Amino acid sequence: MAETLEIPALHYRIFLTENLENDLSGFFYKKKDVYTQKIILADENTAKYCLPILLDQVPSLNDAATIIIPEGEKSKSLEEISVIWKKLFESGADRSSLLINLGGGCLTDVGAFAAGTFMRGISFISIPTSLMAMVDASIGGKNGINFNGIKNLVGTLKLPSGIFIHPIFLKTLPQREINCGFAEMIKHALLEGTLQWNAIKAMKELNPENISPFISDSVFFKNKIVNEDYHETGLRQILNLGHTIGHALESYSAAHHQNPLKHGEAIAAGLVAEIFLSQKLFGFNTQVANELIDLVNLHFQFSEKIVAEELLPLMMGDKKKISGEIKFVLMKKLGEPVLKASVNKELIIESLNFMQQVLKF
Amino acid sequence: MAETLEIPALHYRIFLTENLENDLSGFFYKKKDVYTQKIILADENTAKYCLPILLDQVPSLNDAATIIIPEGEKSKSLEEISVIWKKLFESGADRSSLLINLGGGCLTDVGAFAAGTFMRGISFISIPTSLMAMVDASIGGKNGINFNGIKNLVGTLKLPSGIFIHPIFLKTLPQREINCGFAEMIKHALLEGTLQWNAIKAMKELNPENISPFISDSVFFKNKIVNEDYHETGLRQILNLGHTIGHALESYSAAHHQNPLKHGEAIAAGLVAEIFLSQKLFGFNTQVANELIDLVNLHFQFSEKIVAEELLPLMMGDKKKISGEIKFVLMKKLGEPVLKASVNKELIIESLNFMQQVLKF
Repeated sequence: MAETLEIPALHYRIFLTENLENDLSGFFYKKKDVYTQKIILADENTAKYCLPILLDQVPSLNDAATIIIPEGEKSKSLEEISVIWKKLFESGADRSSLLINLGGGCLTDVGAFAAGTFMRGISFISIPTSLMAMVDASIGGKNGINFNGIKNLVGTLKLPSGIFIHPIFLKTLPQREINCGFAEMIKHALLEGTLQWNAIKAMKELNPENISPFISDSVFFKNKIVNEDYHETGLRQILNLGHTIGHALESYSAAHHQNPLKHGEAIAAGLVAEIFLSQKLFGFNTQVANELIDLVNLHFQFSEKIVAEELLPLMMGDKKKISGEIKFVLMKKLGEPVLKASVNKELIIESLNFMQQVLKF
Repeated sequence: MAETLEIPALHYRIFLTENLENDLSGFFYKKKDVYTQKIILADENTAKYCLPILLDQVPSLNDAATIIIPEGEKSKSLEEISVIWKKLFESGADRSSLLINLGGGCLTDVGAFAAGTFMRGISFISIPTSLMAMVDASIGGKNGINFNGIKNLVGTLKLPSGIFIHPIFLKTLPQREINCGFAEMIKHALLEGTLQWNAIKAMKELNPENISPFISDSVFFKNKIVNEDYHETGLRQILNLGHTIGHALESYSAAHHQNPLKHGEAIAAGLVAEIFLSQKLFGFNTQVANELIDLVNLHFQFSEKIVAEELLPLMMGDKKKISGEIKFVLMKKLGEPVLKASVNKELIIESLNFMQQVLKF
């Protein structure tokens, strides 16, 4: 059995574990198990596929109350957060209770927001079950719900007491979900530099066995950036690479496509468009840009077209905008991002059309 | 003109000012006026009585957008916080906007929660207009809304960038509101010790001129406690003096009385009951206890009766309870609080009946 890797984060630890029982028990022991109550938050999917694994591995959690919410983006709503607050209260949660968030990025987002706001904040831990949540969403303290049609318009920054990442949950995922998480690993690799990029670009088949060994690199990288700039006053903004166009594409697709793009798919395409901008404006290496296109084409499919011009207003609504101007994170070369790059509208549209063409939308 | 007193708080300053223009300008200057937009949040009352004073004193704020919500506890609801989030978005607020909370304790509670959760937290300052908000509610980072019938069940801890306390706003208050704020000054004086107690107990008439000089003592004391234990793991709990019974009384009165008690009135009565418990359990000085009863009788009126037994279950629901047991903050003597005192139900009921009798409910 592999040893647990413990990564020190801001005020907590990230455990890359293959023994949940051992590491959770150790965690509770170190915290002197001050928690008056443990409550597991799961969604309909993770309640079915992941909760049995968790309870099998950590039998002491069989006593925990369970709150189950719908899966996916619809859980990130005012209605569902209200249900969670209500059920926390009804199950007798107090300020010393612990919420255990078992799920993917949507669940860890809404669960952390619930923990951050119930009785002005109770402790929580995250057990991410999707690749996306393992390498990205669960790390960094960001949480939130969608409101008024805007993603994550309402939320807080709130750190967990611990994150427990166990690759066993990857086996519960449909292939499409694994690929979506891989999009964020591609982003981290571009930002980190040649070493991670060479490992990631060589990934021909995305399955739990191939991916597991590279999760720690991605987690390390994200965590390092968050530790250096928790409040996102500068450096942390680099994690927005691919997301300015990616988020707009995701919103557009949700409104126009029969089979809407998932977040990770939109980010993969957004990376291709924003690396195109990086070539045009900062001379990003053409060979690496082509490797990225090949990698995205290998693992993602885009079947429905977009109208490039219609994505522009969606970028204006991005909550990271500052005073009306769209700013991008672009790249000079592997490992060298550029913050707050201005791009004119014509070039943005050119990048969207290029993306659509090379990715065979 | 009096000089501004600047009290260093955790990461911000509390300004006891008689020159808002000067101190706000200085504040914006020090912050390099990074705010892309300033938005004033007021309630129906403060929009009418306080906003004109603010705009007169600080003409540059005439450019600020204004959001107006209902006054009082009904503003601390999921519905109203949703309205605020929506209006913030519609007025183009982004992460670099500043929310200016102009109002009493309810408004600063809901306004700080809005600022704490909009786009994962934007900056805000508080300009408390009620005595209660000046000496208590606006200080310490606690915010929240009522939910599922429970006061402040949902909220966060979020510090303002600055608090600006100007006694000019006291002149806009009805007498009953001034007396309510005075209840928290009584609490602070009991907790602080003989010096503050002697000043407070000598207060025969509650008007802005008499009270203004003592606001700074109360603010200093509250701020000192908050600075030492921001996360309320111990010491800060002393500020709950009078509130275990006070909150139950407030809920009871809201449900049963024609003219329900205001928060400050319930706290004043709660202090009398909890000091009675302090006499019984910790030998609190009888003379001081009697001075408290006289002081409360001088400034507060209680006309409608309670059924003591019916308050017990309301205390069980207090969110500060730990695993089902009701714990009190009591006092050994002036300036010497006791945390987590257990009290049996018979004695609680005796204290409620005593309170009702001496305060002529």
